[in-house]
Amino acid sequence: MAENRQGSTDSTKETLGEKLYELAKRRGFFYPSNEIYGGLAGFYDYGSIGVLVKRNLENLWRKHFLRLNDNSFEIEPSDIMPELAFVASGHIKNFIDPSVRCRKEGVYYRADHIISEVTGQNVEGKSPEELSSIISEYNVRCPKCGGELGEVKVLNMMLQVRLGAEGDTVAYLRPETAQGVYVNFLRQFNIQRGKLPMGLAIIGKAFRNEISPRQLLIRQREFTQAELQTFVDPNSIDSAEGWADVEGYSLRVLFSGNRDAETLTCAEFSSKRGIPKLYVYYMAKTQQFFIDILGLPLDKFRLRELSKEERAFYNLIHFDVEVYLESLGEYKEIGGVHYRTDHDLSGHGSVSKKSQEVLFDGKRFVPHVIELSTGIDRVFYSMMELFYNPKSEKKEWEWMAFPPNLAPFQFAVYPLVSKDGIPEAAAKAAEKLKARYKVFYDQSGSIGRRYARADEIGIPLSITADYQTLEDRTVTLRNRNTGEQSRVAISNLIEEAEKLLGN
Amino acid sequence: MAENRQGSTDSTKETLGEKLYELAKRRGFFYPSNEIYGGLAGFYDYGSIGVLVKRNLENLWRKHFLRLNDNSFEIEPSDIMPELAFVASGHIKNFIDPSVRCRKEGVYYRADHIISEVTGQNVEGKSPEELSSIISEYNVRCPKCGGELGEVKVLNMMLQVRLGAEGDTVAYLRPETAQGVYVNFLRQFNIQRGKLPMGLAIIGKAFRNEISPRQLLIRQREFTQAELQTFVDPNSIDSAEGWADVEGYSLRVLFSGNRDAETLTCAEFSSKRGIPKLYVYYMAKTQQFFIDILGLPLDKFRLRELSKEERAFYNLIHFDVEVYLESLGEYKEIGGVHYRTDHDLSGHGSVSKKSQEVLFDGKRFVPHVIELSTGIDRVFYSMMELFYNPKSEKKEWEWMAFPPNLAPFQFAVYPLVSKDGIPEAAAKAAEKLKARYKVFYDQSGSIGRRYARADEIGIPLSITADYQTLEDRTVTLRNRNTGEQSRVAISNLIEEAEKLLGN
Repeated sequence: MAENRQGSTDSTKETLGEKLYELAKRRGFFYPSNEIYGGLAGFYDYGSIGVLVKRNLENLWRKHFLRLNDNSFEIEPSDIMPELAFVASGHIKNFIDPSVRCRKEGVYYRADHIISEVTGQNVEGKSPEELSSIISEYNVRCPKCGGELGEVKVLNMMLQVRLGAEGDTVAYLRPETAQGVYVNFLRQFNIQRGKLPMGLAIIGKAFRNEISPRQLLIRQREFTQAELQTFVDPNSIDSAEGWADVEGYSLRVLFSGNRDAETLTCAEFSSKRGIPKLYVYYMAKTQQFFIDILGLPLDKFRLRELSKEERAFYNLIHFDVEVYLESLGEYKEIGGVHYRTDHDLSGHGSVSKKSQEVLFDGKRFVPHVIELSTGIDRVFYSMMELFYNPKSEKKEWEWMAFPPNLAPFQFAVYPLVSKDGIPEAAAKAAEKLKARYKVFYDQSGSIGRRYARADEIGIPLSITADYQTLEDRTVTLRNRNTGEQSRVAISNLIEEAEKLLGN
Repeated sequence: MAENRQGSTDSTKETLGEKLYELAKRRGFFYPSNEIYGGLAGFYDYGSIGVLVKRNLENLWRKHFLRLNDNSFEIEPSDIMPELAFVASGHIKNFIDPSVRCRKEGVYYRADHIISEVTGQNVEGKSPEELSSIISEYNVRCPKCGGELGEVKVLNMMLQVRLGAEGDTVAYLRPETAQGVYVNFLRQFNIQRGKLPMGLAIIGKAFRNEISPRQLLIRQREFTQAELQTFVDPNSIDSAEGWADVEGYSLRVLFSGNRDAETLTCAEFSSKRGIPKLYVYYMAKTQQFFIDILGLPLDKFRLRELSKEERAFYNLIHFDVEVYLESLGEYKEIGGVHYRTDHDLSGHGSVSKKSQEVLFDGKRFVPHVIELSTGIDRVFYSMMELFYNPKSEKKEWEWMAFPPNLAPFQFAVYPLVSKDGIPEAAAKAAEKLKARYKVFYDQSGSIGRRYARADEIGIPLSITADYQTLEDRTVTLRNRNTGEQSRVAISNLIEEAEKLLGN
């Protein structure tokens, strides 16, 4: 079979990261943006197969998080926002990265990143002056050419645009979707008739002028976030409507200062640490999304508490969602649960001079915010790695073990040959399946090669119409995971599919 | 009933446009972006109800246009693209608007717009010098203050961003999604295994620094496009796979130079005008989308041919999709079908020095492009107007007649009272419906007021649980369009809904 496959290189010498990237480019998951122009650093495009998986991911996120209560909605504010909004949010002042320039090559690096690589120190929160003196003290040099480094400077990471005929209106592409929600809070509070808790979500683009974009989809300059901001009465944050459903659910948590993750129930977690039940409830719902819905392995997942030094000062409680990625050799942040208090609304209230106070339950107050943040591209990359299977004795080709709800197609449909009415029989079966499922119809190459093609993009089931189909209206049904094949009547296909795909 | 409604002003004095905008803001269809900061000209946000309708619209577009052939896929390239891509596309040189400044107030206007308003002339394609002399010849003055106008200048309408630590990489937010497809053509052609026709679609944002954004969602600086680029062998453009299905289908067309639209079948249209069948096929599919799927009224719809002067020089054939909008007093472009030939691919080929030629069917050539372009926000606004019904004798409140597939929810569910187990019975019925439909659960206010609330956002069906429900497991089913009510067994709800909603 192997000799039938073209375009694949000898993959044994490649690292896991290289194998994933090769597959991503070859099969259309993702690839560099504007490739014919040599690419654009920090930008990737989703191809035809990637978009199908990304849409599934986004829709599963919507379905899970927006159904947590009847008062949660998606909104779609503009990506471009005025300068004042970022004065209020603090981004104009604080959304800066320490950057240092190699005097030999003129290339910029993140000062904190190269310092911690060389010294092993965590230098988060240090001033440019402090970083500069660490650089000279430890003689930190350019990681590429060994050249001398200049002074550490800070650069704002937002991308500016100038609007109007003379370009005199300064605005920015949002660096996070969250701010788009906060500036809409008051209007939506009225539209949703003044109830708390109220959830507002955005699934959309955010933009950052990263100094050193890297690790493919992990650190991009343009990326997709899915964030749910839940506005709450701070006095009722220690109760959650769905608490009974989660109190016995076990979270996998790494506490700040600890080495290993531990497992404890929501009830234990809340009482031991004095963490409000509503926050714990959202942590449970977050873990359930990644483990139960996306099907990521629990032993590579953890909710990591950030220390006071690591987290933003306005986050009273902050746990990152992390997964272990072998291709990067470390746990990587793919989301977070943040208790942001009234920091954001109060900031916008004071700069806009529109009070963000509401009258609720007989009291006047500025609502607090619990934020669920998901980096869609980072989750996408994680899924590609965690569902990836290399060539093995069992299968002579790479394959993706996407669960059916994430797979780009649930079914591949093949005619055994391209004549004698077999394609028509296959097309008829495909039509039937299309009413319920996404179907990939593939007519060319040997059946083995077609199986490989479907496995590489993670299609869980395939059916083949052959000469027997013309006689008894059955097709061969093949299971991606097991390789098992069975004969199924076309009239039973949907029923059989429901059994196997589990919905 | 009317006295129960709050927040609505005396709507009899308002224009249609004002009524729509008031409803849009009050119920969360759309409203100005960054309102608490006084808004940002040319930017609007979709609210909680608007997003539900917009997602339905986008998904219907996907479903209709991507299923036209098995080789059509959505991709998601970056919104930001490098300068060279726009050198190739011609946007750096040609994507300019003639602009003129009022010397008294300093405000900029589109020179061509204010000239045609005053003189009635169509000045499309005239040079800045020609426009300046028309202004002095006709003594055109500032439309706001009557002040004297300056010289006509041209301004590039793209929004620039500068990437990297020193901002020395110049890039642009794409002014149309199309270019994102063209730079991906070669890679996707390989991924899709070298077949033509090949369709690539983007549903995403585009950005233009409009000099005078106006008419709410119609002319924005940030907007959503849905575009399908179909790459074809120019030699087979006079045949279309689905031709037999459309040849008898009647198009409503306004030919260039004519006053009135006429109706002719695809077959007549193609043979009379010598227009290639594949192009006509896409026109038919476009009209079907707006009329049969979205349900817009045919008598307010037309496909308008652009004259040679009006259309871009590279469009060999160009029909705009237009709808008549009473609130604007004119037919408005909401989409288009464009035969762009090999203009785009050849441009990118020559600037990138990566030949865009393919080997297909034994020949080497640069594929031609037929573009289907849809302005999602413009369609959204059109739908709001065309499905809007003012207060009348029949209904004492405004209502939206969205078809079920566009409505934000298919069902509203009400408990008659908030006690005696009625809410539980209603919730149970709601749960059942949620497996299939989007459901809005509404517990507060009189039933009449709740009906009004549902009608305003266009929910087609509602059910009420009452004391009888506890006895015989039936609910009242109310039809938005007719106001008719009937009793239906909860066990029959889905069946009944399928009948009424037509799917």
